[in-house]
Amino acid sequence: MTIKSVKKTIFKIIEPSKDNDKVSHIFDIVIISLIVINLITVIADTFALPPYAKKISKYIEIISIAVFTVEYILRLWTSDLLRPNLNPAKARLKYFFSFMAIIDLLAIIPFYLPMFISIDLRVLRSLRIIRLFRIFKINRYTKALNTIGTVLKNKSSQLISSMFVVFLLILIASVIMYNVENKAQPDQFNNVFQAMWWAVATLTTVGYGDIYPVTVLGKILSAIIAVLGIGMVAVPSGIISAGFSEVIDNNDEEGKKKYCPYCGHKID
Amino acid sequence: MTIKSVKKTIFKIIEPSKDNDKVSHIFDIVIISLIVINLITVIADTFALPPYAKKISKYIEIISIAVFTVEYILRLWTSDLLRPNLNPAKARLKYFFSFMAIIDLLAIIPFYLPMFISIDLRVLRSLRIIRLFRIFKINRYTKALNTIGTVLKNKSSQLISSMFVVFLLILIASVIMYNVENKAQPDQFNNVFQAMWWAVATLTTVGYGDIYPVTVLGKILSAIIAVLGIGMVAVPSGIISAGFSEVIDNNDEEGKKKYCPYCGHKID
Amino acid sequence: MTIKSVKKTIFKIIEPSKDNDKVSHIFDIVIISLIVINLITVIADTFALPPYAKKISKYIEIISIAVFTVEYILRLWTSDLLRPNLNPAKARLKYFFSFMAIIDLLAIIPFYLPMFISIDLRVLRSLRIIRLFRIFKINRYTKALNTIGTVLKNKSSQLISSMFVVFLLILIASVIMYNVENKAQPDQFNNVFQAMWWAVATLTTVGYGDIYPVTVLGKILSAIIAVLGIGMVAVPSGIISAGFSEVIDNNDEEGKKKYCPYCGHKID
Amino acid sequence: MTIKSVKKTIFKIIEPSKDNDKVSHIFDIVIISLIVINLITVIADTFALPPYAKKISKYIEIISIAVFTVEYILRLWTSDLLRPNLNPAKARLKYFFSFMAIIDLLAIIPFYLPMFISIDLRVLRSLRIIRLFRIFKINRYTKALNTIGTVLKNKSSQLISSMFVVFLLILIASVIMYNVENKAQPDQFNNVFQAMWWAVATLTTVGYGDIYPVTVLGKILSAIIAVLGIGMVAVPSGIISAGFSEVIDNNDEEGKKKYCPYCGHKID
Repeated sequence: MTIKSVKKTIFKIIEPSKDNDKVSHIFDIVIISLIVINLITVIADTFALPPYAKKISKYIEIISIAVFTVEYILRLWTSDLLRPNLNPAKARLKYFFSFMAIIDLLAIIPFYLPMFISIDLRVLRSLRIIRLFRIFKINRYTKALNTIGTVLKNKSSQLISSMFVVFLLILIASVIMYNVENKAQPDQFNNVFQAMWWAVATLTTVGYGDIYPVTVLGKILSAIIAVLGIGMVAVPSGIISAGFSEVIDNNDEEGKKKYCPYCGHKID
Repeated sequence: MTIKSVKKTIFKIIEPSKDNDKVSHIFDIVIISLIVINLITVIADTFALPPYAKKISKYIEIISIAVFTVEYILRLWTSDLLRPNLNPAKARLKYFFSFMAIIDLLAIIPFYLPMFISIDLRVLRSLRIIRLFRIFKINRYTKALNTIGTVLKNKSSQLISSMFVVFLLILIASVIMYNVENKAQPDQFNNVFQAMWWAVATLTTVGYGDIYPVTVLGKILSAIIAVLGIGMVAVPSGIISAGFSEVIDNNDEEGKKKYCPYCGHKID
Repeated sequence: MTIKSVKKTIFKIIEPSKDNDKVSHIFDIVIISLIVINLITVIADTFALPPYAKKISKYIEIISIAVFTVEYILRLWTSDLLRPNLNPAKARLKYFFSFMAIIDLLAIIPFYLPMFISIDLRVLRSLRIIRLFRIFKINRYTKALNTIGTVLKNKSSQLISSMFVVFLLILIASVIMYNVENKAQPDQFNNVFQAMWWAVATLTTVGYGDIYPVTVLGKILSAIIAVLGIGMVAVPSGIISAGFSEVIDNNDEEGKKKYCPYCGHKID
Repeated sequence: MTIKSVKKTIFKIIEPSKDNDKVSHIFDIVIISLIVINLITVIADTFALPPYAKKISKYIEIISIAVFTVEYILRLWTSDLLRPNLNPAKARLKYFFSFMAIIDLLAIIPFYLPMFISIDLRVLRSLRIIRLFRIFKINRYTKALNTIGTVLKNKSSQLISSMFVVFLLILIASVIMYNVENKAQPDQFNNVFQAMWWAVATLTTVGYGDIYPVTVLGKILSAIIAVLGIGMVAVPSGIISAGFSEVIDNNDEEGKKKYCPYCGHKID
């Protein structure tokens, strides 16, 4: 058994399981289980735990990091088989900077960093649960998610530009609101960033109620922003609706091309 | 008159009434009235009632339970006529585990359980009003509801997978938010579950205002979550819109199939 | 000049103005101006006014009531010309119970009632501003509003049945929430109606923050209701979207029927 | 080199840059950078700054105003080249009253006004950031924004008329709510404007929680308004969805026209 065949076998195991590949399937389940266990540990750590539970939590972390590190190295090593038409170095570099690989690296790196530099990276540890997105690679809703992803991608330029208008709106509303409300509520609207916090809460219609205008002018401006906030939901809804309709139309189009609209016979 | 014919008659009465079946119609009205009376009792019981009203409420309960129990037994007994091509035992078992039958059982069982075990199941008593869903079986909006149900069913995999992304988002946002806000507000963000409560209130744009970030980092994260919350409305809206358009298109399609698009003559 | 011709002239003046009918146009402007003046009076009356302003407000009211009463009588008198193929008595009765006529009557009746019975109907006085809806009869957005109205009417059965599901959901959630939260917050959730107020505020994502769950079970239930609240926006959005698309498709359909899809020639 | 050719060169530089025009591209970047720097200054001014920072902020303002003034004069001077088929005076007047030109004027005028009249126009100074909208003229999302603009313009009459219904609803709900809640909460609902503030917060589902009904009647009315608020999101969503679908259909239509639906051959 050569190194090349070992590599190929590992690659097959690591890749999302096909229906008839049992070893790969077991590997997927082990990794996802470990991620879920990590998630439970991260949540449990926020409670006041007895010493023995803290010990278990620590052991789980060491084992997880060991497994995730080996998995990461294997994925990086075999990543050249993902893109066979590129040269190995380039293929690995491309994989290294892919979305999933960056998440996988962020999940293990907070453990190793304190060895070299003395900083507390406990917050970064919680990033490990982002690996939960790996679930999408193995479950049966992948196709539906791909459709949603395609729609969002197709409409990305429209969505981004509508978000940019919203961003400008928030900026302008914040600056005006700061000038309007600052004198009446110097503690609440003490700078533009506070006004921005108000603008986001109003435009998204969250409205926590921790900050709101009290002057007449401020209330009128707030009412205008709140009404524009409806557009902030309605415009993306409209864009995404059209996106989903288009995807369906495209599928229909393909179906129609195969049949004559007149006699119903197949056309090749 | 044999048992078989009695059973058939009972089955016809119990089933949702057809236009010309008066007895079945009266039966439907009696049952729905009894459910509505039970709903009023459940609401009235939450107020401080005088003793005589409590007595009436108790009598209503006994009568309701008696009627609902007889109804449930009759439905179970005649349920083999619903699926004539299955053997009776299997047909009854299938009915026993159907959505409506489980609700009907949950509506009567809290009354009988205290006879055997000594627990207070008063909360479960309120489940009786779920039987209100039976109204849909007899009213004229059934067709419209079926269309809505069909759309939600057709799009279930897309809706479920978008809800799953939201669930992951809530998880990740909660863990990060707990780490960000815990030091500033140890009473509010005292564990990840509290942070989840905040995440749901923000993503759904409810924003009660009982819990919100006070740190700058927390506010930035909250703003991002609130903006993503718009997507949480816009994406399902888009999916469901496309679903409704499709249902209409399908109907149109059927209409189109009957006419030649070229000459306008009917095609058989 | 006979009574009949006088009646016809009055009818023409009262009806929404056509482009070339100047008298009718002036009449419309006078009535709308009077409604707007009444609106201003109703708003001004809520402030502490000086005596002379109260006097003006009273004079405006007397004049308005006089004009509105004469207008109402004339509309009722000439309403038989609206439906020429019905006999006069029936046509008038039909007009008497029309939406606009009821609003017009409600606008004047609170002034006359205190003459006969001694009750304070000042609240009903504010109903006069509902007459503002008359503006739609004379402005240029009538066509757009008709399209919206048609869509809502076409989809009314779907919208009503989805609202009915929401109503059941509010009922069931309220009863359960009352049982869950009553012990923890007896002052807030003191009966089912308070729980309903919470359910409406959560499902519609308003979230005032005056009432919210504090128990773990209550928070989980609240999270489920808040997420279902998204469906409450998404489902009607989808229904209405499809409705608007259909209206457009119908227009397209009509256009298509007139041309052969093959050669582009007109078909009669 | 004549004045005419100088003017033409300036016009080319000022106009949004084409891909191969480097000077125009640099000009765009300089102007946008200056606007962004101004934005940062406006935000920074809301914090308590040390004296030297205030000095820098002042210098930035003087330079910005100088550049923006020269830019404005040049744009106005060359604006007759924008509309070559009009006579120069008319073309300049049309440009003077265009949306972008008004924003540009509002951005510089607050600096010059205090020279003539002694008023504090510091609030107007923040209007300078509205110039950020100029970014749209030079970025790659212009096409997507144009599509959104076209949809909103096509549907403007429907959107405006639905907003008008909402405005009437707010008016009527406010007046009724004032009469219902005034006695119970004279401090909160002290006039109709306060009730309007409540109505806007409820209809848009913002729900700050600073004002809400406490009486039973007020809560019922509020529940109705909150449910109608869903329509306020659903109807514009539907209108805009249909608008986006239409734009796509139109594009498809053009594509379809080029092919015979029967034989699939190109049609010229």
